[in-house]
Amino acid sequence: LDDIPHTGVTVYADSTSMIPGIAISTLSAEKLSISIKKGVTQLYLKTNCKMLGLRPAPNVIGEIRGSVFPDEIILVGGHLDSWDIGQGAHDDGAGCMQSIEVLRLLISIGYQPQRTIRCVLFSNEENGLVGGKSYATISNEKKEFHLAAIEADAGGFTPRGFSFEADTSVLKSYYKQVSRWLPILESYGLYFEIGGSGADISPLKAQKGLLIGLRPDGQRYFDFHHTAGDTIENVHKRELELGAAAMASLVFLIDKYGLK
Amino acid sequence: LDDIPHTGVTVYADSTSMIPGIAISTLSAEKLSISIKKGVTQLYLKTNCKMLGLRPAPNVIGEIRGSVFPDEIILVGGHLDSWDIGQGAHDDGAGCMQSIEVLRLLISIGYQPQRTIRCVLFSNEENGLVGGKSYATISNEKKEFHLAAIEADAGGFTPRGFSFEADTSVLKSYYKQVSRWLPILESYGLYFEIGGSGADISPLKAQKGLLIGLRPDGQRYFDFHHTAGDTIENVHKRELELGAAAMASLVFLIDKYGLK
Repeated sequence: LDDIPHTGVTVYADSTSMIPGIAISTLSAEKLSISIKKGVTQLYLKTNCKMLGLRPAPNVIGEIRGSVFPDEIILVGGHLDSWDIGQGAHDDGAGCMQSIEVLRLLISIGYQPQRTIRCVLFSNEENGLVGGKSYATISNEKKEFHLAAIEADAGGFTPRGFSFEADTSVLKSYYKQVSRWLPILESYGLYFEIGGSGADISPLKAQKGLLIGLRPDGQRYFDFHHTAGDTIENVHKRELELGAAAMASLVFLIDKYGLK
Repeated sequence: LDDIPHTGVTVYADSTSMIPGIAISTLSAEKLSISIKKGVTQLYLKTNCKMLGLRPAPNVIGEIRGSVFPDEIILVGGHLDSWDIGQGAHDDGAGCMQSIEVLRLLISIGYQPQRTIRCVLFSNEENGLVGGKSYATISNEKKEFHLAAIEADAGGFTPRGFSFEADTSVLKSYYKQVSRWLPILESYGLYFEIGGSGADISPLKAQKGLLIGLRPDGQRYFDFHHTAGDTIENVHKRELELGAAAMASLVFLIDKYGLK
């Protein structure tokens, strides 16, 4: 309960007529509800939002080409867009910076990856996953194979672990392989679990690689998520860096030992 | 590196002459050091701090008397005092509130403990552990037995786990017992480890009970610790509550199943 409106997407079942969705804060909603129930208030709302259609908005991509298996791609990514009321510092500036930082970290230690490590900053996640869907379509056309993809899109907080998903035909085998590395990462307070990965990378599932979500501490995320408070002052530098380090560690292990 | 001075205790070896200790911020210290090295600055410091001796400052104690083993005490505690430049909200207002909350939670679910659950808010931890030492002395005189003692004194952040210590003659046996409960707490993201517990409860070690430290996420603690920034605005309600819930869960398990 707070005084901060959280915006976001309203989704309708096909069989339902669409009605306008408007965000007000939870405390305001409580007050308004009481006032309407008492008959004190009558409410008339007029909104003038409309969809004006899509405009070009590129995904931003950088990569380190693999020295041995360049056709096996390990993707790290977040999304560039945010809801307009805030800066989108946690959602998902944090994930973008962490994804760039993974490549920077690997370069800074002079590591030459065997596989292609690709950083993708997806456009337009919030309004229909347009960047993620386009990326997967083009990738499929190019007959690319993403061995693994890690998305950071749950806030720039202290990393708690990773969540893994894949096509059911390959998930068990992949999870068995990554679980061998759990003792290494567990000593830094990270857990592994089967679960969702990330919205932008989800269209890559058909390539039958391993999809991975970075799971940060979630207690503060919904103080900021889709609000005017999602600003850079509310991102903690060391927590952000730890998330990038966790991602870089997992990328390193996948690159060095593969997933077979 | 920041502009916030962190105060604290200066400790001397017996063989060393004491010299005054003064806190300035790390960034100021860097600037000052450079300026002195360049010969631009000469520094003259005068301090007028002195010890005026001790004054009465009671520990504050509340308990739920055990219904079956009232002589087996399970203590939860933090310390009441703080450094004067801040409010001491994290250090250790958080631990005091969490300790009170453990008793409130047990009462709120109508739980009747078998053992005595005692909340102790220790006085004067920062300046010589006076409350903790006095508490142990009086407890020993009364021939009390603390089966377990949990201290919360590392900030009111998301709980990550518990650290256990005890007299070497009993530690292994206790740790084996508590480790049976790890799968229960692990599912809430908590780990167990052998390590330090808490300053205030450490004088109880001779009673050969189990001493336990709540281990919260530590990334933000030294942004606030012993500074003017240690104020209640910087404590996150839900993170604080989760720490209390973690402590209450462990107290419940120890009370219900004992440590044998």
